[in-house]
Amino acid sequence: MTPPSERWPDLAGRIVGRRHILPVRVYFEDTDFSGLVYHANYLRWCERGRSDMLRLLGVHHFELHAPGDGGAPAAFVVRRLEVDYLRPARIDELLEIVTECAELGGAHLTMAQEVRRGERTLCRLSAKIVLISQTGKPLRLPPAIVARFKE
Amino acid sequence: MTPPSERWPDLAGRIVGRRHILPVRVYFEDTDFSGLVYHANYLRWCERGRSDMLRLLGVHHFELHAPGDGGAPAAFVVRRLEVDYLRPARIDELLEIVTECAELGGAHLTMAQEVRRGERTLCRLSAKIVLISQTGKPLRLPPAIVARFKE
Amino acid sequence: MTPPSERWPDLAGRIVGRRHILPVRVYFEDTDFSGLVYHANYLRWCERGRSDMLRLLGVHHFELHAPGDGGAPAAFVVRRLEVDYLRPARIDELLEIVTECAELGGAHLTMAQEVRRGERTLCRLSAKIVLISQTGKPLRLPPAIVARFKE
Amino acid sequence: MTPPSERWPDLAGRIVGRRHILPVRVYFEDTDFSGLVYHANYLRWCERGRSDMLRLLGVHHFELHAPGDGGAPAAFVVRRLEVDYLRPARIDELLEIVTECAELGGAHLTMAQEVRRGERTLCRLSAKIVLISQTGKPLRLPPAIVARFKE
Repeated sequence: MTPPSERWPDLAGRIVGRRHILPVRVYFEDTDFSGLVYHANYLRWCERGRSDMLRLLGVHHFELHAPGDGGAPAAFVVRRLEVDYLRPARIDELLEIVTECAELGGAHLTMAQEVRRGERTLCRLSAKIVLISQTGKPLRLPPAIVARFKE
Repeated sequence: MTPPSERWPDLAGRIVGRRHILPVRVYFEDTDFSGLVYHANYLRWCERGRSDMLRLLGVHHFELHAPGDGGAPAAFVVRRLEVDYLRPARIDELLEIVTECAELGGAHLTMAQEVRRGERTLCRLSAKIVLISQTGKPLRLPPAIVARFKE
Repeated sequence: MTPPSERWPDLAGRIVGRRHILPVRVYFEDTDFSGLVYHANYLRWCERGRSDMLRLLGVHHFELHAPGDGGAPAAFVVRRLEVDYLRPARIDELLEIVTECAELGGAHLTMAQEVRRGERTLCRLSAKIVLISQTGKPLRLPPAIVARFKE
Repeated sequence: MTPPSERWPDLAGRIVGRRHILPVRVYFEDTDFSGLVYHANYLRWCERGRSDMLRLLGVHHFELHAPGDGGAPAAFVVRRLEVDYLRPARIDELLEIVTECAELGGAHLTMAQEVRRGERTLCRLSAKIVLISQTGKPLRLPPAIVARFKE
């Protein structure tokens, strides 16, 4: 039988040029009683976009957290966020999360992201990400990850 | 340009025979500090499965809530849940939510659902759903919806 | 200066007889576009109730997960849930989560819980809880925990 | 019997001078598999702080959304956020959300917020809030709300 990963080839979105695009459906869980999407849920969607971009570049949270090569456990964490909410999203809508690496430092990367409905931008987010050890110490980005973003 | 709904043909999963199958990726937001998926999040995934099965059958939450034909607003709500947690799910895993209509009454429907990783069932859920008016009154299921489930 | 734990003496609720009572406010995050509380969020509230009952009995998740005495890490997980949704909760409401130990086995405990608004029960939940090791093996409940529930 | 609101006098936190302080406990639901609090959940806590500050000032979401005086429905929405994550929070911790009105315009207000553990600031958030009508049109802040913030 076909393995699930082949049954759903687009589940992690697609990389188009320098951008990653992830489709997201608005479900009950994303909305609040105002009828609109709850503001913190745009952050969940953008995190999915960043995770899936990394996934398609070959970086997996699970491997960072429990490296098979005996290396020290590490995890990406968000250091700073800026979010502009331009237009609201609503139940049942099909949105796209567009993610791009805006800045690549030795110990951090900044991702520029947009939540779009068709051609319209609903939300714009900038996330500064760092890699930390299990004790919270900032780590330099592994050269393999840096190389993949530079391609 | 291709509309988003054509760019992502599988976003609402697929109906195979009497079953609906929706792929779900485990993200940071789904896990808790135990390293496993937080128990309430299986309910979010199962609700996505039910919503997308209805969507593929032509039923949209938004239309129920604000009917274009001037009918009274209605919404599906959960009346009773039974959930068995058999094996834990973890970050980065690709799961499938399998949904089937187990019982179709005049004023309720019971959905039998499973969360699967490959051939393994991780969680089994039974949800009794009713349609209510805005004031909370139970409504009979519209014949159009009943007919689609009976096909 | 007063430590935060003394500034907020009721934060973990109160034990009254055999029951634990935790107040919960309904916020934006708990509701969905239907105007009511999203069904999975009652599970979050009930988990808070169970955690705070354990806390007042002297059991802390953090200590179970990283025991200071060199013991093996463990965590409580939910094995089975039954939930009856009787009446909806809405934004701004003040609710109380009432938790009671309904059954205490050698390797599991069953908690009976209610979400109440004043004298009215909105939701009734039964949760079978087990203690597992980090590899997922069920563990016997520590005698200290059993003793506290028997009191 | 004592009404719930008298049983839990501190549930909405306290106003101390120009600041509102709300205690928050870290539960399972707030953490992720990294062992730390998930970044989007600080936003949920800060929204609770803003809602409870407004509540203590006499402003209720429910009344804005369905005004008893026949006025048009309105809701507060977030227009822009800046968030600095300084130190991580962990399970079982007792935190305090400190909220202050940093700027009061004719049609918006900016809230400066901090998530603190004892004397330490874990997260700093600035939220620009606007009041909108049901169709999304920005509204002027009602004089009654402005007056309460000015006191």
